[in-house]
Amino acid sequence: MNFVEVIAKKRDGQELSREEVWHFVRGATDGSIADAQLAAMLMAICLRGASPRETQYLVEAMATSGQLWELARDFPELVDKHSTGGVGDTVSLVFAPWLAACGVPVAMMAGAGLGHTQGTLDKLAAVPGFVPAAQREEALLRLQRCGVVFARQSEVIAPADRVLYALRDVTATVPSLPLIVSSIMSKKLAVGAGKLVLDVKCGRGAFRKTLEEARELAQALVAVAKQAGVAVRAVVSAMDEPLGPALGCAEEVREALACLEGHGDARLMELSQTLALHALQLVGKSPVQAKQELQQALASGRARQAWDDLVRAHGGDPDPRVLPRSQQSLEVVSPCSGFVTALDGEALGWTAVSLGAGRRFPGDEVDWSAFLRVLVRCGDWVEEGQPLARLGWTARSLDPEALMVRVRQAITVGPTAPSPTPLVLQELL
Amino acid sequence: MNFVEVIAKKRDGQELSREEVWHFVRGATDGSIADAQLAAMLMAICLRGASPRETQYLVEAMATSGQLWELARDFPELVDKHSTGGVGDTVSLVFAPWLAACGVPVAMMAGAGLGHTQGTLDKLAAVPGFVPAAQREEALLRLQRCGVVFARQSEVIAPADRVLYALRDVTATVPSLPLIVSSIMSKKLAVGAGKLVLDVKCGRGAFRKTLEEARELAQALVAVAKQAGVAVRAVVSAMDEPLGPALGCAEEVREALACLEGHGDARLMELSQTLALHALQLVGKSPVQAKQELQQALASGRARQAWDDLVRAHGGDPDPRVLPRSQQSLEVVSPCSGFVTALDGEALGWTAVSLGAGRRFPGDEVDWSAFLRVLVRCGDWVEEGQPLARLGWTARSLDPEALMVRVRQAITVGPTAPSPTPLVLQELL
Repeated sequence: MNFVEVIAKKRDGQELSREEVWHFVRGATDGSIADAQLAAMLMAICLRGASPRETQYLVEAMATSGQLWELARDFPELVDKHSTGGVGDTVSLVFAPWLAACGVPVAMMAGAGLGHTQGTLDKLAAVPGFVPAAQREEALLRLQRCGVVFARQSEVIAPADRVLYALRDVTATVPSLPLIVSSIMSKKLAVGAGKLVLDVKCGRGAFRKTLEEARELAQALVAVAKQAGVAVRAVVSAMDEPLGPALGCAEEVREALACLEGHGDARLMELSQTLALHALQLVGKSPVQAKQELQQALASGRARQAWDDLVRAHGGDPDPRVLPRSQQSLEVVSPCSGFVTALDGEALGWTAVSLGAGRRFPGDEVDWSAFLRVLVRCGDWVEEGQPLARLGWTARSLDPEALMVRVRQAITVGPTAPSPTPLVLQELL
Repeated sequence: MNFVEVIAKKRDGQELSREEVWHFVRGATDGSIADAQLAAMLMAICLRGASPRETQYLVEAMATSGQLWELARDFPELVDKHSTGGVGDTVSLVFAPWLAACGVPVAMMAGAGLGHTQGTLDKLAAVPGFVPAAQREEALLRLQRCGVVFARQSEVIAPADRVLYALRDVTATVPSLPLIVSSIMSKKLAVGAGKLVLDVKCGRGAFRKTLEEARELAQALVAVAKQAGVAVRAVVSAMDEPLGPALGCAEEVREALACLEGHGDARLMELSQTLALHALQLVGKSPVQAKQELQQALASGRARQAWDDLVRAHGGDPDPRVLPRSQQSLEVVSPCSGFVTALDGEALGWTAVSLGAGRRFPGDEVDWSAFLRVLVRCGDWVEEGQPLARLGWTARSLDPEALMVRVRQAITVGPTAPSPTPLVLQELL
């Protein structure tokens, strides 16, 4: 096959055949197609789009470019949850033990965090001794022990996605819908949970700014999952202000524990429960039944216990007292009295990264103790001098004055109360 | 400057600034931008297009990526002629000495020929001893001696174009109008003749198949030339059947000599004269005056003499008897009586290449003696057994039967006379 002709076909807006898409993905994986040709194809897809059929071919070819774990063969009720990336999104740490406590096994795979949102594996790495699974056998063992596996995305899973993602990153082809869908779904299919709950973020702090854009992505993801025989539900949720109050690794683990103990943040609990309800319905529970089971798991302490179990199964120490604590701290207070009118999630996320809570560049070291805790919510009334946020860090030498300015710029206080906005914007079955 | 953001701008259809376009071209030239990023930008330009302003920036940046010869400084009346590539297009070999005989200096630069059309430098290389100029000083010396310079496009001229052309070739971004325009015009501006005559081919044997497409290219080239202060005329000419009867290096030189001696092919003469008339008008002659001067140059033998002069000035032997002659030959006759209804220029061009008259791949050896001479024209009546074409070659071992089939497939004979089509389709001032 002459790949120049395949590029030309996509350039001219024609639909590629299954064979042509597979040739592209195979060439990316084994290096037989030059980067320049891959990049031209990516830009052509970015500008010409891809049909549902082409997207399906892409997903399948990328998923099978590496190992297929097929975990559902051993755990037919296995649920995977995926979020498109939000600030203060501690849901995974609440969702997994909560569902496990209801008897539903959970598998989640993640890569290293990058940018203004923290990665789930970085948060879990704050737990001393915690090691995510990297191989299928390890994943199965952990599922058998505790009903949960957190896995690290390694080179054996969808290697085509690694090659293509690295190219997309430098060729301005990241925002393409079919490329986003194939990147996400290829990894989901490679892991092979039979049930999937999606949380598509929407708003200023997210990749998709408008409800329409977020819904479009959610629909495309749902379509591909269904086509591949995966039972799926999707939620579109607001991501303007941070979801939970904690931004930072150990701090988010603490927040998750608070949720599992029944005294966590209300919004974080609301979204965790919404997603968990969908997961339970995917394994055949009625909405009423699902709600009851979740409440009982929480009230009985089983959800909290499931956390300790999953940490131990991953080699970690569940004692919350061993979580890293920051040695430097700063409290930022409100310069005036008024209503909190906006909390800029993206700006707060970057501030947390500057404390060491995340990575600006791949390979950056993460300070597990670093955090930014938001103490107010949009619509709250604050008095002058009232704390807006608390910051902590250990390793870096930072200018408290500059940090204070950044936080105050990200948290707007004004005379008029903002109109309240819902957290869950849409649910797709 | 972050080049990913520049790609994103073009991806989104925004106009690039002068600085951004120059950054792109500089990065291509010095290798500081990765091939994948250049390729993504080329595909984005291919699909989003480029404004006249962006095209102008591209041309300027590419022209100044290497040496600027500014030949017009020494020869203010200097004329350059460019054709977008046709089969049997011997015009350059007729045009240059003819104009020189009228006192108008001519400079033409070319690369090595590739594909179904032969390159002018390959044709001239059939003349024993002929060496094109590669440096500015050489070019000036030849212009002083004979009023004509044929120059070889080397790495000192528009090196950005070499890099980008090599990438376009493998990324299906060759057909982009602004990229074609910038490739052609950057080299013209680097040589720096102040006057330019363009011959844009149109038809089945050309890059631009329809009159509309060819006119669009001609207009874009004219606009860029004018913007750069170059006096310009453009002609759109038909390229379905071969322009002249000779396809092949030495054979085209012989055909050019026949034209300069007044007994050459009528169509070849018609287009050569049309382009020469425009050139003379660019240096201030009236149409009537121009026509008279061309006729006198031909009738007096000065045009024929100018050929010998230019060959000597380039180190060659002008004696036509030293031109290579083929040792193998084949005559293809008509299998039936009827009208010649079509001559497939592209197929005949490729047949000539298979004889050794051109290159399928860069680096292929050319057989200067190899040729295909078309003995009939569209609309001619031929009898069964009448010769349609004569083929000659030296080096290769070829199957005459297979060649005969190819030629007969390319020359269609049928019962109905085709409607005649004009050669010169449009003239742009």
